[in-house]
Amino acid sequence: MSSGTRPKVLLFGAGGVGTVYLWLLSKAADTTAVCRSNFYVVKRDGFIINSSIFGQGLHFKPEVVRDCEEAASKAASVPYDYVVVCSKAIPGIVPNLIAPAVTPGKTAIVLVQNGVGIEQEYTDAFDSNPIISAVVYLPATQRPAGVIAHGEVEKLQLGSYPTSASQIPARAFTELIRAAGGTAEFHDDIQPRRWFKLLINASWNPICGLTLSKDTDILESCDEAGAVLLAVMMEIRDIANANGCAMTKEEVEYQLSRAQARIPLNAGIEPSMLQDVQAGRRIEVEAIVGNAVRMGKAKGVQCDRLEMLYVLAKALDLQIGRR
Amino acid sequence: MSSGTRPKVLLFGAGGVGTVYLWLLSKAADTTAVCRSNFYVVKRDGFIINSSIFGQGLHFKPEVVRDCEEAASKAASVPYDYVVVCSKAIPGIVPNLIAPAVTPGKTAIVLVQNGVGIEQEYTDAFDSNPIISAVVYLPATQRPAGVIAHGEVEKLQLGSYPTSASQIPARAFTELIRAAGGTAEFHDDIQPRRWFKLLINASWNPICGLTLSKDTDILESCDEAGAVLLAVMMEIRDIANANGCAMTKEEVEYQLSRAQARIPLNAGIEPSMLQDVQAGRRIEVEAIVGNAVRMGKAKGVQCDRLEMLYVLAKALDLQIGRR
Repeated sequence: MSSGTRPKVLLFGAGGVGTVYLWLLSKAADTTAVCRSNFYVVKRDGFIINSSIFGQGLHFKPEVVRDCEEAASKAASVPYDYVVVCSKAIPGIVPNLIAPAVTPGKTAIVLVQNGVGIEQEYTDAFDSNPIISAVVYLPATQRPAGVIAHGEVEKLQLGSYPTSASQIPARAFTELIRAAGGTAEFHDDIQPRRWFKLLINASWNPICGLTLSKDTDILESCDEAGAVLLAVMMEIRDIANANGCAMTKEEVEYQLSRAQARIPLNAGIEPSMLQDVQAGRRIEVEAIVGNAVRMGKAKGVQCDRLEMLYVLAKALDLQIGRR
Repeated sequence: MSSGTRPKVLLFGAGGVGTVYLWLLSKAADTTAVCRSNFYVVKRDGFIINSSIFGQGLHFKPEVVRDCEEAASKAASVPYDYVVVCSKAIPGIVPNLIAPAVTPGKTAIVLVQNGVGIEQEYTDAFDSNPIISAVVYLPATQRPAGVIAHGEVEKLQLGSYPTSASQIPARAFTELIRAAGGTAEFHDDIQPRRWFKLLINASWNPICGLTLSKDTDILESCDEAGAVLLAVMMEIRDIANANGCAMTKEEVEYQLSRAQARIPLNAGIEPSMLQDVQAGRRIEVEAIVGNAVRMGKAKGVQCDRLEMLYVLAKALDLQIGRR
């Protein structure tokens, strides 16, 4: 980290989640954002954040660039301390895109993404750089470009990848988020937190995306739905357990109960995969479902329902890609 | 049957399949068709059938009515010998709709529909009438209204319901189809034929409908797809076996191989449920998937994948119903 000065942060993926962290980090760091689909509107008008926590109508104009080559040319003398990746976790793409902005042995890469097994391609591509793995709870959508709606939760759980790597970079980034006014927890082992969030992501995301339904609509669709959802989550739990991340049945039931509790409030949630399908965008099927299925099968875990969801979501994703 | 005269047939459900049989039956019977969404165009212009088997540009103007009350009033003196139901198998609706045209103790009801467990509501509603259960192989679509495209297969398999009931009405209808130039097979027990067709219907229909994909696209989407499809079909086989309809693994593999063989030909098929989803129509989820799942669970058969498909298709169907 640039001692004595504010750390230098490049955000990659200025969607809802990324933009809220960009706004927070801009209070404690020198920030630049790679904007792709929203570049022109953000360059001209900046962002507006309407947040249930931080306030309505928050306007800011960050430094924006079109890609990491441009970001690198702006950072020629002082390299980036952090590249914060908030883009979708589609394998095989992002390491190449961020490479120009990553200084070997220096820049820490922070992965603020869903799914499991997403970190290895970064370790492979940047073997001298710290990799920080983060689990994010921050419901946010960007619609139209440059305008972010943010709900009532903001929490980041952080740890090093692999777990045996030095904790110093992840602890430093945790402190940076806190200094910026955000909520960050450091974890000695972040992987169990990834699996715990995966209980909801790998179940609700494909189920809602395939059926174009909110989560509560699924639970109300037929008598079998609640038991099937629990069974899918239990398969994810079994895979997590087989991969060294212990979770109890009570933790699984807690994750399911969050949707059940919203039925009487008529407050169904549209998971990101449903939003993506509705907008015609590719979905994070490998990071959120495929990797878990493969990690389960490698350990001999029975996960027929999750595998069924994987095949369906994979086919849907390919169909979206053809449009 | 009206001895010495042509039998009197009412068709309910003048979609692709129904219209081809209406055209055939009109050669050997006095026919009337209940047309609903296509009433005005068919009343004015009749139907055009473009058939790979029977010929292109076949034009005919059948007797059409708006509903079964109107059909009944036209048949006041001579009741219908057959009401042929070719509408979708959505439970709880059709028996009421056809009741005015069904003469107790006389009219045979012919169910030309997919799924299993679809007959009982007709037996319950018409306990003095013969119920004829039919499995149909006839790829046909109606687009626009009144214009039918029919592919290369036309086959009807028929039997009595329940199996123990008199075979006379089903044998007579089998002969009528043959006399009209169609392909009909009488079966002492039609239920195994229903389950055999269900191998493809209960698997491909929801899988293609949920993913908006042709069957071959599913098989090509990922390495896991072929095994998952076979596993779904094996669950259907296990449920069939538990319900007294023996099917071998080879029969299952044969049904799967039909799609596999079409991959190199780039000849994917759009099952009816996919066509329905694309057109925003309700899908036959209970007849094709739900009844099988319930019959499986009642016998203690493990059918996790099929149950997963049921919950997904059910939620999708309810979502379609809301639009």
